[in-house]
Amino acid sequence: MSEAIQAVFENLRLELRRGCLILAVLAQLREEHYGYTLRKTLADHGIDIEESTLYPLLRRLETQGLLLSEWREHEKRNKRFYRLSPAGAATLEQLLVEWESINSSIHQVLSGNAVNIAKEA
Amino acid sequence: MSEAIQAVFENLRLELRRGCLILAVLAQLREEHYGYTLRKTLADHGIDIEESTLYPLLRRLETQGLLLSEWREHEKRNKRFYRLSPAGAATLEQLLVEWESINSSIHQVLSGNAVNIAKEA
Repeated sequence: MSEAIQAVFENLRLELRRGCLILAVLAQLREEHYGYTLRKTLADHGIDIEESTLYPLLRRLETQGLLLSEWREHEKRNKRFYRLSPAGAATLEQLLVEWESINSSIHQVLSGNAVNIAKEA
Repeated sequence: MSEAIQAVFENLRLELRRGCLILAVLAQLREEHYGYTLRKTLADHGIDIEESTLYPLLRRLETQGLLLSEWREHEKRNKRFYRLSPAGAATLEQLLVEWESINSSIHQVLSGNAVNIAKEA
């Protein structure tokens, strides 16, 4: 694969991940986390997010009413804990329905083509 | 769900679909299509794309070297037919690997939480 095509792929990969990231963050915040444990748990599940992406995203989702946050002491340091608001839980549920529908469409496209290719052969 | 939250959901939904759309278009163009049949086939699989989104996307993907196109007469009218280039096929393959990995991560997040919630109960 040429360098130019590799750069195109990298852009498409980021575009693909961007929307999914929010889904993962909302799903993980069904339980309470502060930034560090949220990043670590997502990384354990194969989702790497830079702090410079995660923290603005958390603030944006809180401003939009999907997250609640609270400062609390944890291991002698103040941490900002985040969790889903009721509106966030409802939004997550709708996004998961959407996600399953996209998944099913993509699988249909993939197997539909396989059938057509087989017919032509 | 309030109107404000509904608007937030709609934005997140579009963000989620945007990246996936390109995956679906590339996968569908493993066989040749012109714009109308491409839109129709994707719609049959549950993926609705406006012409005003699809046509610029096709031109962008062709400029990036992922698609090949050719004008040909079809039913007495000239149509521009599109299909994956070899670089496009390689990119699609990589994106599908990425897609499966994102899917697996999201399922892990979803079931990981279920386990933790069960533990707390």
